[in-house]
Amino acid sequence: MVKFSDIVSAKKRIASMIHQTPIFESSLLNEWLGSRVLFKAECLQRTGAFKVRGALNTVSKLAEHKSLPKQIVANSSGNHAQAVAYAANLYQVPAKIFSTKNVSAVKAAATRHYGAKLALFDTRVEADEAVARAAEEPDTVWIPPFNHPDIIAGQGTLMLDTVDQTGDVDAVFTPCGGGGLLSGTLIATREICPKAKVIGAEPLAANDAAESLRQGKIVPLSGPPVTLADGAATPSVGEHTFPILQQVDGFYEVDEIRIAYWTQWLHHLLKLHMEPTCAMTMEAVFQWLKTVSRGQKVVVLLSGGNIDQHKMSQIWAKDYLTELPRL
Amino acid sequence: MVKFSDIVSAKKRIASMIHQTPIFESSLLNEWLGSRVLFKAECLQRTGAFKVRGALNTVSKLAEHKSLPKQIVANSSGNHAQAVAYAANLYQVPAKIFSTKNVSAVKAAATRHYGAKLALFDTRVEADEAVARAAEEPDTVWIPPFNHPDIIAGQGTLMLDTVDQTGDVDAVFTPCGGGGLLSGTLIATREICPKAKVIGAEPLAANDAAESLRQGKIVPLSGPPVTLADGAATPSVGEHTFPILQQVDGFYEVDEIRIAYWTQWLHHLLKLHMEPTCAMTMEAVFQWLKTVSRGQKVVVLLSGGNIDQHKMSQIWAKDYLTELPRL
Repeated sequence: MVKFSDIVSAKKRIASMIHQTPIFESSLLNEWLGSRVLFKAECLQRTGAFKVRGALNTVSKLAEHKSLPKQIVANSSGNHAQAVAYAANLYQVPAKIFSTKNVSAVKAAATRHYGAKLALFDTRVEADEAVARAAEEPDTVWIPPFNHPDIIAGQGTLMLDTVDQTGDVDAVFTPCGGGGLLSGTLIATREICPKAKVIGAEPLAANDAAESLRQGKIVPLSGPPVTLADGAATPSVGEHTFPILQQVDGFYEVDEIRIAYWTQWLHHLLKLHMEPTCAMTMEAVFQWLKTVSRGQKVVVLLSGGNIDQHKMSQIWAKDYLTELPRL
Repeated sequence: MVKFSDIVSAKKRIASMIHQTPIFESSLLNEWLGSRVLFKAECLQRTGAFKVRGALNTVSKLAEHKSLPKQIVANSSGNHAQAVAYAANLYQVPAKIFSTKNVSAVKAAATRHYGAKLALFDTRVEADEAVARAAEEPDTVWIPPFNHPDIIAGQGTLMLDTVDQTGDVDAVFTPCGGGGLLSGTLIATREICPKAKVIGAEPLAANDAAESLRQGKIVPLSGPPVTLADGAATPSVGEHTFPILQQVDGFYEVDEIRIAYWTQWLHHLLKLHMEPTCAMTMEAVFQWLKTVSRGQKVVVLLSGGNIDQHKMSQIWAKDYLTELPRL
C-alpha cells in the first residue's frame, strides 16, 4: 500500500528533474460559476503530461538502489511512452517502447527524441505480447502505466506541488483512467489538505472505474471504448489503484458532448492546449458546484496536452462556445 | 513620430496593470531547426492579447493629463475591442464598442465582462459609420486600433518586457496587420538590442503591407481578405505605422497552408492555444533561418489567443503534424 511518506520521498527524488508548472485561472469563469477554479497546468510539464512523475520516480528509485537494469521496456502509445523514454534517457538506460503502427507521427517523433527505440506492431494485442516477452529478457525492467506503488507515489507528487502554490482548497478534481493520478492525489490530499474533497471524472463511454466502484470489485470494459478522452480510455483499473479509488468523495461520468464542450471552453479561457481527458474533469467541477454553496476554492489537475489532429478536428467540429458555462 | 522614450514612458504607465507573460521554447523544435526559438506568450496577457498594452497606454496617458473623457468608443470585433473595454473599465470610463451582429458569443461576452456596452450592426460599414458619429459626441475619445502614436508606444513595451527575459537576441519576429506591434517593436529593438534584425510576417491573402513596402506607398487591399490570420487581415497600414515599417530588416508573406501548419505545430509543441496570426510568424522564422548560419537565438512575439470555433475547425481539418518542421 502506498503511504504519504512514499509520495514525499518521490518528490525529493524527482523535484530537480521536472518543472514547477504554473497555476492558471479565468476571472470570467470564476464569475460565471460563483466559485474560484484553479488549474494546475501540468500540460506544460516535461513530455507534456504528469506521467513523467511516475516514470521518473520509478527509474530514480532503481538508481537509488543501484539496480538500474540494462533495458527498460513499456507498452503505450500515449503519454506514458514518452515519460518512460524521457526517464530512461536521463539515466542513460536504453528504453524500448512497444506500440502500434498507427501511433501518431508526433508521439513517435517525441519518443525517439527522448532516445527510446520504438517497436511497432499491427495490433495492440501483438504489442502487449511483445512487451511481455521482452520483459523476460535478462536485466530488463517493465514499467507499467499506473498499477505500481512507485508510479502511484510519483503521480501523487503533483498534488504536493499544487498545494505549495494554491494553499488549502475545498476540493481537488482529476481524471481517472487506470487510476494512478487519482490514487496518488487522494493519498497526498488526505495528509496535506485533509478537509478537501477528492473527486474523479471518467468518460461515460469508458466508465469501468465508476462501474467498479458501484459493484465493489474491479470490472473491466467489455470492449475497446470510443471516447475523445483517450488518456482515460484504460480498459480496467488495477489492484493497486482500486482500493484507493474506493475512498474518493465523488466520481462523475462525462458524456462525449460535455468532454468536447469543456475542451473548447478551457482552450479558450485559459489559452492552454490541453487534452480532452483533463478538460473533461471540469464537468465534474460544474456538477459538483451545483451541490454546494457558492464561494468554493477548487483545483483541477490538467493532466496533459498531447492531442493528435484527428481528435482536434472532432473536438472543434461543432461550436460549443455559443453556450456560456454559467451556474 | 514615436520615440524610444515614449515606449519607456508607456512601460512605466502600464507595468502594474499587465502580466509579465512567460517565455516558452521547445527543445524538439530547437533541435530540428538548429537554432533557439523563444516564444513570448502574450496570448496569456490580460484580455488574451498584446492589444491591451496600447489601449492601456492611451487611456492612462489621458488620465495622467487629467483629460479622461466621459465616454470612450472603438470599433473592432477583435482583440482591440476587449482591450479598450478593459482599459476603460480600469479608469471607470464608460466604453462603447461598435461591432457587427455576427461577433462571436465569446468575444461579446468578454467585452461585456469588462464593462463595455456593445452596439451591434448588420455590416462593418454601418458599425464604422456609427463609431464615427459617436466620436463626435461631446467629451468622447475614439481609440483607434493601431494608427496612433500612443498605441504604437504601448505595443512597443512588449519587446522591452521580452528582452528583460531573453537578453540579447539575433532577431525578433512579429505579425503585421495595421503595423502597430511591428512598429513599436522596431523602435524598441533598435535601442535596446540594436544588432537584432526586426522581421514581420503577413498573410499572403492580405498582403497590403508587403505590397506597400514594395511600392513605397500605402496600398490598401482591394477587397475583404479571406485568411485564417484574422488578426492580420487589416485592409491597410496607416500613416503613423508605414514610415516605421519601411525600416524593417525582412518581411515575409505566408500562405494559408503554412499558417495552418504552424498553428498546429505550435499548439502541439508549446501547449499554448495561440491565434493563427501569431503562429504564422513562425514561417518567417523558418524561411529566415534558411538564409543564415545555425545557432541563432530568435524571439517570436505570440500576439494573442482568441480564436473562434470556425477558425479552429478550419485549422485542424487536415493533418500537418505528419510533416515534421526540420531544417
